[in-house]
Parts: sequence; C-alpha cells; structure tokens
Amino acid sequence: MLENVCRQVQSLAGVGHVADYIPALANVDADRFGICLRTVDGNDYVVGDSAVRFSIQSISKVFALAMCLAVKGEALWTRVGKEPSGTAFNSLVQLEVERGIPRNPFINAGALVLADILLTSFDDPEKEFLAFVRELCGNNTVDYNDKVALSERETGYLNAAIANLLKYHRNIECDVERVLRFYLQMCSIEMSCEELAKAFLPFADHNVQFAHAGIELTRSQIKRMNAIMQTCGFYDEAGEFSYLVGLPAKSGVGGGIAAIYPHRYAVAVWSPRLNGKGNSVMGMKALEILTTETSESIF
Amino acid sequence: MLENVCRQVQSLAGVGHVADYIPALANVDADRFGICLRTVDGNDYVVGDSAVRFSIQSISKVFALAMCLAVKGEALWTRVGKEPSGTAFNSLVQLEVERGIPRNPFINAGALVLADILLTSFDDPEKEFLAFVRELCGNNTVDYNDKVALSERETGYLNAAIANLLKYHRNIECDVERVLRFYLQMCSIEMSCEELAKAFLPFADHNVQFAHAGIELTRSQIKRMNAIMQTCGFYDEAGEFSYLVGLPAKSGVGGGIAAIYPHRYAVAVWSPRLNGKGNSVMGMKALEILTTETSESIF
Amino acid sequence: MLENVCRQVQSLAGVGHVADYIPALANVDADRFGICLRTVDGNDYVVGDSAVRFSIQSISKVFALAMCLAVKGEALWTRVGKEPSGTAFNSLVQLEVERGIPRNPFINAGALVLADILLTSFDDPEKEFLAFVRELCGNNTVDYNDKVALSERETGYLNAAIANLLKYHRNIECDVERVLRFYLQMCSIEMSCEELAKAFLPFADHNVQFAHAGIELTRSQIKRMNAIMQTCGFYDEAGEFSYLVGLPAKSGVGGGIAAIYPHRYAVAVWSPRLNGKGNSVMGMKALEILTTETSESIF
Amino acid sequence: MLENVCRQVQSLAGVGHVADYIPALANVDADRFGICLRTVDGNDYVVGDSAVRFSIQSISKVFALAMCLAVKGEALWTRVGKEPSGTAFNSLVQLEVERGIPRNPFINAGALVLADILLTSFDDPEKEFLAFVRELCGNNTVDYNDKVALSERETGYLNAAIANLLKYHRNIECDVERVLRFYLQMCSIEMSCEELAKAFLPFADHNVQFAHAGIELTRSQIKRMNAIMQTCGFYDEAGEFSYLVGLPAKSGVGGGIAAIYPHRYAVAVWSPRLNGKGNSVMGMKALEILTTETSESIF
Repeated sequence: MLENVCRQVQSLAGVGHVADYIPALANVDADRFGICLRTVDGNDYVVGDSAVRFSIQSISKVFALAMCLAVKGEALWTRVGKEPSGTAFNSLVQLEVERGIPRNPFINAGALVLADILLTSFDDPEKEFLAFVRELCGNNTVDYNDKVALSERETGYLNAAIANLLKYHRNIECDVERVLRFYLQMCSIEMSCEELAKAFLPFADHNVQFAHAGIELTRSQIKRMNAIMQTCGFYDEAGEFSYLVGLPAKSGVGGGIAAIYPHRYAVAVWSPRLNGKGNSVMGMKALEILTTETSESIF
Repeated sequence: MLENVCRQVQSLAGVGHVADYIPALANVDADRFGICLRTVDGNDYVVGDSAVRFSIQSISKVFALAMCLAVKGEALWTRVGKEPSGTAFNSLVQLEVERGIPRNPFINAGALVLADILLTSFDDPEKEFLAFVRELCGNNTVDYNDKVALSERETGYLNAAIANLLKYHRNIECDVERVLRFYLQMCSIEMSCEELAKAFLPFADHNVQFAHAGIELTRSQIKRMNAIMQTCGFYDEAGEFSYLVGLPAKSGVGGGIAAIYPHRYAVAVWSPRLNGKGNSVMGMKALEILTTETSESIF
Repeated sequence: MLENVCRQVQSLAGVGHVADYIPALANVDADRFGICLRTVDGNDYVVGDSAVRFSIQSISKVFALAMCLAVKGEALWTRVGKEPSGTAFNSLVQLEVERGIPRNPFINAGALVLADILLTSFDDPEKEFLAFVRELCGNNTVDYNDKVALSERETGYLNAAIANLLKYHRNIECDVERVLRFYLQMCSIEMSCEELAKAFLPFADHNVQFAHAGIELTRSQIKRMNAIMQTCGFYDEAGEFSYLVGLPAKSGVGGGIAAIYPHRYAVAVWSPRLNGKGNSVMGMKALEILTTETSESIF
Repeated sequence: MLENVCRQVQSLAGVGHVADYIPALANVDADRFGICLRTVDGNDYVVGDSAVRFSIQSISKVFALAMCLAVKGEALWTRVGKEPSGTAFNSLVQLEVERGIPRNPFINAGALVLADILLTSFDDPEKEFLAFVRELCGNNTVDYNDKVALSERETGYLNAAIANLLKYHRNIECDVERVLRFYLQMCSIEMSCEELAKAFLPFADHNVQFAHAGIELTRSQIKRMNAIMQTCGFYDEAGEFSYLVGLPAKSGVGGGIAAIYPHRYAVAVWSPRLNGKGNSVMGMKALEILTTETSESIF
C-alpha cells in the first residue's frame, strides 16, 4: 500500500519550495521523501527516507498542547481559543482584533502562549519537554538543534512582533525573549518519520492510558486534542486538508506531517518542498492517496 | 440513552434566546426540545418533540451543497471555498477582502452562490430541491413555508447586501432578487427531528449508493461533504463544536442541529433557544453529552 | 497663469482611463480638458473646454452635505462621521466594523445617508436639490441626466450592497431603492467648469452670507465643510492631494474636481482620464501646478 | 484674547485622564494648563503654565520628519505614506495589510521608520536631533529625559511589536533595539509651550529661509509638511480636529499640542488630561475657541 502511495506522489517531485526563511533549514535536500505508518495493533510500514531526521517545527505544538492540557485542564482555554484561524498562520491582524487571545494553539501566537505556560509550570521546561517527546517516541537520542533555534531567533522578527503584542495584551507572563527562545527550541527538535509516527500513536489508541514522562491525559482530552488538530492543524488550509484527507493532523514547515486515524493508526510523512500555504506538497498528496485508496477516513 | 441525555440537558432550559430577527420565527415555543437518532442498521430512538416540524433554516445548505456537488463536481470550488470562516456567519468583511469568493458553502454568502448555481442548473429549482429533500426524508408533506420566506425577505437587508456584493464581484449570474428569494425559500423548509435524521442518514451510511431524486454522489463526495460539515458547519463556533461533540454537523437558527457519525448513525435535535453565536443551547449540549457518555466520536 | 498650467499638464495627456463602470459615462471624449477659476473679487479665468458640461458625480456630495448641515446642524454627525476613510471610497469593511456609521459624508456610504436625510427632510427632494444647485451656479438649465442615473442603478451592485448594509444597521430610514435612486440622480447632474466654479465660490467667500434657495449656512459651518473637503474629499488619496495641492476640494469619477482657496477663489477643472484611485490625472496635476507656481495654498 | 480662551476652557478642568501607560509620565500634575502664541511679526502672548516643561512625546515626530525630508527629499515617501491612518495610532492591522509601509510619518510605525532613517543618515543622530530642536527653540538647556525614555522602553511592548513587524517587512535597516531606543529618546524631549511655539514658528513663516542646525527646507517642503500635519497630526481624530480647529497641528500624549496658522502665528498649548483618543482635552478646546472667536482658520 505505502509503496503504491510513494509511487503515485512521485509525479509531484520538484513541485514547491523548501522553507527559506529559516536559514539553517534551507540547506536540506529538497527531494527527500519518507513515510511511516504504525497501527494500534503493532504493525509498522515504512517507505523511503523514513529513518532520516528532520526539523519537526510546528508539529512540536502538538506535544506542547498535550503538556499544557495535562497541567491546566480546561482552564487553558481562557488564554487561547480553539477556533480555526481563517487566516495565515502568522497573522497579527486577528490577534490585535481579538485583543491578545490567539485563535487556537497551533498558530504561532497560540504556541507562544503555550510556551509561556510551560515556562511557568515546569522547573526545567527545556528538559521536561524533551523528556516527554523522547518517551513518546521511545528514543533518547532525539534532541533540540540549537543551531536551528538560534538561526530562527536571529531572523524571526515576525515571531518577535507577535510575542511583544501578546505581552502588551498581558497574555504572556514571562520575559518576551525567554518565551521566544523556548518556543524556537521546541520547534527545532529533529525526528524521523518512524519516531514521529510512534510519538503520535498514543493519540490514536484510546485503549491505552496516556501517561508519558509524567504527562497524563484522559481519553476525552485526547479526543479533544484530535478535534483541534482536525480543525486547526493546517493553518488556513485546514479545510482543504480535511476535505482531501479527512484525518486529524499537524504539519510543520520542515516538510513533515503527522496524522492519526483514531482506533487504527498514526502516520508520519516527510518531504521538504512546501506549497504556498507552508504545507508539504508530497506529504499532503501522500495522505490524500492513502485515505482515498483505502476508502478510510474519519468521515 | 437518549432519555438520559434529555434529562441532563434540562438544566439548560430557559438559557438563550429565540432568533428574533426573523419575525415569523419569533413566535415559536421557546422551550421545545426533541431529538431523534437513527442508526445505519435500522434502529430509531426518539425523545420529546421529535415529531414537531420547525424551520430548518441553514441546515438546508447541506441539501443545496449535495445538489451542487452532484451537478458541478470539483468545479464547484472555483466559486466557493472550503475553509472555515473564522468570523461570524454573515460577515461582509471576508467576502470583500477575498473578492467575492465566499469562504465556504455554509456561510450565507456561500449558500447564496449555491442558490445561484441551482437556479442556473435546474429547470424548476424550487420543485427539484423540494423533491430531493422529500425523497431523502421519505415524506411528501414536507414543504416550504412561504410566509417565513417572505418575512425574511422583507427584513433581510444583510443578505441583500451580501447578494449585491457577490453580484458586483460577478459571482452571481442570476438576478439578485431571484437568488435571494430562492435562498430564503430553501431555508424556510419545515421538518421534524425524525425527518431530518432520516434525511441525513445517507451521509452516514457509506454502504448504500447515494441516489435520491436524481441526485447522485460518490462515496468520496459524501465523505468530503462530511469534512466540510465538520470544519464549517457551526459558523465561528466550528472549533468549539468539534472540540465538545466531535461529529460533522450543521445547525440552523431555527434551533435545529443535524449530525452524523459515519458508519453508525444520524441524529437530529431541536430546541429553539440559541447562544450568542446562533446555535441551539440545548441542542449542542445534548450532542456533547451523547458523544461523551458513549465515548464515541470521530476522534 | 491658467494658460501656463494648461500647457504643462499636456504632458499627461493620454494617461489614465475613463471610468468604465458607468456605461453611460464610458462614451465621453477622454481627452477633454477645461478649467475655470473665479476670484471672490469678481474675476474669471477660463481655458479649454471650460463651458462643456460633464457628469459631476461625487462632487454633488458637497451640495448634499450643505443642505443636510443646514437642516440638521451638528446633529448630522450622529449619523455620519467626519474622519478620513483611510480605505477605498466604496469599502464595506469599514462600514461593517463601525456598525453602520459611515466614516465621512463623502464616501459612498456617507452620501447614501445624506440622500436618506434629504428624502426625509424635504417635500420634493429631487426638485429642491436641483433648485439649490441651479441657484448656486446661476443657471437654470443645469439638470439631472436620467439616462446616466438609470444606467448606474442597473449595474450599481456595490452601492446596493452598501445601502442594504446601512439599512440593516438602521442608518437608513427610507426604502433602500428610493435612497439609491435619489443618490444616483444627484450624482448625474451635469455642469461645466464655469458653472462649478461659480457654485463653489460661496464656500470660499466668507464675507457674503450663504443663503441660496432657502439653504442657509453660517460662516463657521462653511469653514467646517471646507475642513471636511480637505480631509475627506479625495477618498484614500486625500493625503496625497493635500500634500501636492493644499486646497479643500472634491473630485468625481466623471473627471471633475472643484476646489476652493478661502478668501480668494474657487476653481473647477475637468479631464476624464482617471488614475487608479479614481481621481482625474490632469485635473490633479493642473491644481498642483497652480498652487505650486503661485506659491499659494492654505498651508 | 488668550485670557478669554483660558477662562472658557476651565469648564473642562478635570475631564479626561493623564496617560498612565508611561509610568514616568503618570506623576505629572494633571491640572496644569499653559498656552503660548507667537506671531510671525514678533509678538508673544502667554497664559498659565506656559514656561513649564513637559514631555513633548509625539510632537517630536514633526522635527524628525523635517530632518528626514531635508535629507531624503521626495524619496522619503517610498518608505512611508502620507495618507491619514483612519485607525488608532498604534494599529498593527494596517501595517500588516500594507506590508510594512506605514500609512504616514506620524503614527508610531511611521515615526519608527523616521528614526531608522535618521540613524542611517547622521553620524551622531541623538546629538544632531537635539541640536536641531535646540536651535529651533533657541534654548540650549532643552534636553532628553533619559528616565522617561527608559521607562517607556521597559513597558513598550506594542512599539516593540511594531518595530519587529517593520523589520520583518525590511522597512527598518538598523537593529530593532537601536531604533526603539532612539525613537523613545526623541519622544522624551521636554519643552515648554513657549519653547514649542518658537520651534514651530518657522513652519508658519514662509518669508524666512528654513535653515537650522544644518537642516534646510524649501518653502514648498514646509507647506507640504504642514499639509501632513493637517491630515495626519491627530491620529484617528484628525478629521474632528480639522473640523473644530482648522489648523495644521501635532499632539502628544504628554498633553501638548503645537499648531500653526500659515503666514500668521504658531501656538502651543499644554494640559495633561487626555480624551479617549489620546489628545489633550483642554488643549483641543483652547484651540477650537481660539479659531472660532477670531474667525480665523485656514478654511
């Protein structure tokens, strides 16, 4: 099955551009493609560069949300909304109009608030976030890439603008610079498709208690996280992805996408070339083919 | 099960207000509550005022979308988007910014475009639309309420503004007045929860060919319609509904909500009191309790 | 002096396009140019097609404002603002955000409110508006062009959208269609530069009591009207015009501009080719040269 | 005359609030009132606290604009617009929509661009800016207030957001922090009404060559600066001020207003209590009475 998917997406090879606004990411080999699907009953399927690590970028927001939801519970939603943004992922307009409450936790503004919450909730947030991710994917060598994080900070004027606006609206407690650095460090984590698929499997498998590195979520909380992935995981292309693929998922500008089919499987795909909305061209197509050919989606 | 749901939602009795901007609707008994759930394997469950007809209003947009998708196929999406709106259901701002292409088919602007498409695609659109709905719900006495449609036209200045703006951007072919009248007539259809649940069941049951009154949809098209219901069915509360309930659904200002659980059931609930976003207070709560207590949702 | 201006602006001949969205206007000879300057002490200067009548369009809003201010006094400003719009002349966005109160009387939304006020304040508004304009310019043959007004109504979907939105926000009392027709009729008046300059002279001359056809304004009211022309007379190019020319003025898409230099003169210029903001290319340049060469502006 | 103005504005004593978002400014005596009018032919009139220095804040933007215009000429307008903003002085929305080109030099975004231009155009911009202001007002003891500047930097998250957004759009060349500090230092200058009136007189007197501390402007450039003050000097209350007062002017949140009547006089007024738009309540009223009673304004 995955070989078939892989073969079909080759027609899109070379389409799209690698994210170039993060200097340290621009050097990646644009034509890589890897995919890994893991089922809840223990089967794994891999094709292509599935073991190659890449910068997960915004996919890290799912892990940050899981930690915040475990720590804050429903009170989290006083600081961030759960509606799709309807505009590009980094829009300041909406944030200003809505007076500092980001639309959802997956736009940059929302994830900066998550970073602030983690900073005020954990003793050593960098260490505890990494521990959580490592335990989810079962690999202790997964790590931050400090060079990428630093490179983003040096050119990340838009994120700095957003963080300052959040601070102005009193929706960031910590020092602005501290929040920016932690946020970018989370984004800099590097994982392979195989590791990502493993890390997302607990969000698909509702029969196992979610408890990893001290982070515990109820079944209801996991379902609700999946709902947010479904409606908000693809910036202003959430509707398109939902229409074509029909799975809760989260993408990152590193070219990765992690998706889950509740009760069935988690799947991670990676290909660096992005479309105009910042989502992986071949990655989206691969998942569309997967759910279309299997006639299986949440809808 | 439904009795239990019904009992629990009683705590919200009296909360919210009946839509008063449509004069003919303001007279409805605000404290009605009915629910009907029909499974794909043929079981029916009803509680309360499940046989009382009410004005389905925006729920009619699902039927209009089904007809347009059958007629136009994917070409439909050149005239209307499929992204959640992120703003109130009747916002002109987004429409102006995006130069006459409504964000999705379920905001008023989008549904006016659907109306225009039906007017140019069918010989007698009023008759054929009604025939489609009647066949879906299996009841030939379901009908338009001309008085409600007329009442809405006389006070519907916002819809008239939207329709004129669409015409200005050349995304309406027919006469503006003709489009407005047909749109409002579709909204004026009156159905009971029992009829609505029956009409939505074909969207949940993927094992039966969708072919009703000459309107045929593939399994893939139905899944895609469900995806749009999921992301766009609740105006700017789509994320909240997805988070709390986790089912594709469509609401109307008459107080009705129709939802589906793919492969399992369709459910319709009705209670006229609305929250500030225009969705039924008790209806939303009933569906939240239903999916929480059964631990069953698409996520 | 004016001959010199006329000579210099010839370098812009052929630049810009005649307004083509009003069918009946698209047939005008694009390369006409006329100018007339009348001083408060009784001297007249004319060059070119100064006696040719053209469609004054939005310049009519100045006359409508004068009548409304005379009738309503400062209470007028509860229905319309006096701030520059900062956006294009026909933007619905601002109107929606500000809940039906147009930013100023010179954007289309504001002028539609003026039309509504005149309709509710005068017995025969069409007749009385025309009488006022005729007395100002001293020529009883000045008249509406019904064909132009009708032509605009048939294609004026944006104005219809705006009027309906105003009605929705309860800032229009009369029937929407009635307001639209009267508004367009006012716009359809045809005058020559010579007639326009004469009609604007009373706004420049503060030593003569303003009382024409029963419309009386105090000196303070006239000064305030001039202030609004200065800040709002050129849509979203008001700053540019103020910077380059430095006179209170009002333009119309027929290619006319009427301006005044308080205590000194009124000037009207006409040339049908418009720039991208809807203002006459040669007309603006002519006035820029006039105030630059004479080193005389209000600044 | 001024005594009369002073007496009449007393009815507004106590109305409004001192700007409290700048900690170091919140301690000012709220009930101060001073005014100074200087004519081009050499007469001075003073009333009240006309010799007390206060924080000129945004009035400094006029001096910054003069220097930038002298250095860059018309090329300045590729980096900043000259249209009124139509929204609050610190709106990020407009800046984002217009891709980093501030609407005009007097909103905060525009003044940050001015600061950047000065930083790249002068060897010691802090020194040269101060020298220019000192020469204009003829007093070498006028100085920055470092404590106020520092205090604003520590809490100025909105300005930091704006500056980062400008940098993101490549409309700031220097280091963001450097620009912010210089901008706030300019704002921190303290002057009295007497000094301000003297400093603004050269903008009113077109018969004397403008050449101060090496900064030279042509008569045309001065007139154009006045036009920008007229249309943009009062944030989103520019129209109201133009309507009520009718003079080019610039206000600051320290409660100061400096205005000019071309060919006649410059006037500075100070009273710390502000209205909801950030402009001095008694200051605006004083100028309204002045131009109304004298029946003299540019209109």
